Amino acid sequence: MSAAALLGAISGVGKDPVRGGYSRHGFDRVELDLRAWFTEEAARRGLGVETDRNGTLWAWWGEPGDDAVVTGSHLDSVPGGGAFDGPLGVVAALAAVDLLRERGFTPGRPLAITVFPEEEGGRFGVACLGSRLMTGAIDPAAALRLSDPDGTTLAEALAFAGLDAARVGRDDAALARIGVFVELHVEQGRGLIDLGAPVGLARSILAHGRWRLRFTGEGNHAGATLLADRRDPMLPAAGVVLAARRAAAAVSGSRATVGRIIPIPGGTNVIPSTVDLWLDARADDDARTRAVVADISAAAAELAETEGCAVTVTEESYGDAVHFDPTLREDLAGVLGGVPQLPTGAGHDAGILAAHLPTAMLFVRNPTGISHAPQEHAEDADCEAGAAALADVLAHLAR
Amino acid sequence: MSAAALLGAISGVGKDPVRGGYSRHGFDRVELDLRAWFTEEAARRGLGVETDRNGTLWAWWGEPGDDAVVTGSHLDSVPGGGAFDGPLGVVAALAAVDLLRERGFTPGRPLAITVFPEEEGGRFGVACLGSRLMTGAIDPAAALRLSDPDGTTLAEALAFAGLDAARVGRDDAALARIGVFVELHVEQGRGLIDLGAPVGLARSILAHGRWRLRFTGEGNHAGATLLADRRDPMLPAAGVVLAARRAAAAVSGSRATVGRIIPIPGGTNVIPSTVDLWLDARADDDARTRAVVADISAAAAELAETEGCAVTVTEESYGDAVHFDPTLREDLAGVLGGVPQLPTGAGHDAGILAAHLPTAMLFVRNPTGISHAPQEHAEDADCEAGAAALADVLAHLAR
Repeated sequence: MSAAALLGAISGVGKDPVRGGYSRHGFDRVELDLRAWFTEEAARRGLGVETDRNGTLWAWWGEPGDDAVVTGSHLDSVPGGGAFDGPLGVVAALAAVDLLRERGFTPGRPLAITVFPEEEGGRFGVACLGSRLMTGAIDPAAALRLSDPDGTTLAEALAFAGLDAARVGRDDAALARIGVFVELHVEQGRGLIDLGAPVGLARSILAHGRWRLRFTGEGNHAGATLLADRRDPMLPAAGVVLAARRAAAAVSGSRATVGRIIPIPGGTNVIPSTVDLWLDARADDDARTRAVVADISAAAAELAETEGCAVTVTEESYGDAVHFDPTLREDLAGVLGGVPQLPTGAGHDAGILAAHLPTAMLFVRNPTGISHAPQEHAEDADCEAGAAALADVLAHLAR
Repeated sequence: MSAAALLGAISGVGKDPVRGGYSRHGFDRVELDLRAWFTEEAARRGLGVETDRNGTLWAWWGEPGDDAVVTGSHLDSVPGGGAFDGPLGVVAALAAVDLLRERGFTPGRPLAITVFPEEEGGRFGVACLGSRLMTGAIDPAAALRLSDPDGTTLAEALAFAGLDAARVGRDDAALARIGVFVELHVEQGRGLIDLGAPVGLARSILAHGRWRLRFTGEGNHAGATLLADRRDPMLPAAGVVLAARRAAAAVSGSRATVGRIIPIPGGTNVIPSTVDLWLDARADDDARTRAVVADISAAAAELAETEGCAVTVTEESYGDAVHFDPTLREDLAGVLGGVPQLPTGAGHDAGILAAHLPTAMLFVRNPTGISHAPQEHAEDADCEAGAAALADVLAHLAR
């Protein structure tokens, strides 16, 4: 079955009527529906499906075993995200299994497709939550206390999904099963457009993290409170949005973004008492990323003081730069006839796993260059080229 | 029954566990519960309760009739608001009826207590929605299309409350019933604290309005999108928050506030495609208010253009300055023994009605000076002083 046909089958699931695009979040009703759909598709192919302690799905071609060749991605999205970021890697893996069987291939070592939960952190705020839990990159007790915008904790969401919160955390047995991990993903930039190539390999991922800045002032009436009497946290929060752009512009290759800001209480005629703002910052290495965040944090402190407000800066997640295993990368480049190798600013489960085992990523051309938005796209032919390339890679690794 | 005891009876209704304080919004479950409570309290006093076409409650002492003395306020709140803004005026009216009966008073003309819906505009965005509908200050068709953050329209909310949306709009019969309107309200500033007085009269209300600024850019990935490729609407939105403060500081007595901002889609790792921001602006008169908003709108256009974004500015509501009827005000000042007369920056249903009939307001001292926040307060003794003053005023007007 083609990757495009598989994507078509889930194109109605999790549409966001307000934002446009899709809102599919870790362990919510929509993601659970998509996981059930994946389980059915895997079963239809005779793949045996397991759910591990941290909620990652494993669909095994043949007997499960250690040192397997593993591919996969995720089914969740950012709020109002595109149709490809995540699902393309999952459907390409199913399509690759179909292609390999058509070719009469039988794996010479264990082979599995994984679906990691909450890769975007769109619900609980921590990106790559499933792979971070599996690798111990996040403390499970802290993770279980994470809550979504409605106040539901991860522990409660796991229970809703039929998982045991007490068993969450680093899973060495699961890690031992992965001999090598390959994730196919829609490209989130213009690299392959400019190179005129449908498929490429990832070279590296920027260092990146998320920080929450909480500005605290004094809530009051927007009409009755004189300007001189105000301690309005919206002012330093706004200043920080501008400071973030300036700080990133000063460090080559870095990016800083404020995509989420929540004034509390959030009434039109109310000076907020608190403003929460999330900073996403990335750069080529740890030092540059830390420098950008330090610059922004210093600006936040100064801006807050000027308005008689306080500010706290909390690191919610962080990952150093990833340079994908060069031996594996050159090996796969050979298999794929010298496809382009590209850096990316986007984080992935393959980047988290890279600290523990050889990982690689395949990118599929995105004709809009846009991602995390409804305009994200991949042509059908490019999706099939990606699935075929993934089949070639899996056949090579599991030969 | 004391005003404080009546407030105590509803102190558990509509608490906001996330924001603190109360979230009670027009025609939601909580406001409907409070309206049912008011109806019971009125019935317990033998007052006949009617709901008019626009959802305002009327509790009549004796036979309904034209040219009545009417008092009252509202039971809804801003998100995370205080316990007094609105409810104090309603419970003081009930307590004043009790006091007048204890004194053996019988009204010489019709007397009613009204409860206006959605005074804060906390759900549908237009302040004083009930009195605007009654007076025709808002087009009913436009009002019915207003929607809350969940996408529920006012028409749907009215149906939920058992009201007929087709009958909403200017109600001359209701207006004819009000000969004079007196609203008691917690003070939303420090005037009475500084004067050492528990009760005062309102002199005027600032001109004020709400504008929605929608900035449109290009949604994209926060990690993969180079700074040079961005059209991020969060930047001009942040610039406008700062521009609003500067614009208000340049016009004596004016205020400009951004208390609500919604980036769409609102993901941490997503450059928003759109940012909606609400501006609350007020000044002594129409010209000054318009000047402040024009200044901010010009800044918005320039900031948007610099980032390759677009911006639209939409007036959601506006009311010119109100100078309360001087004859009525001096009359009531005489009844109350020369209490202080204060201007206010806050809008009220009494201000909307003032364009059609004589209205007045009593203020009760607020020891924090804070309003629209959980810290809003009035001491029990001051609440009773307010209820007693309201009883004196009603006795005088309905003599």
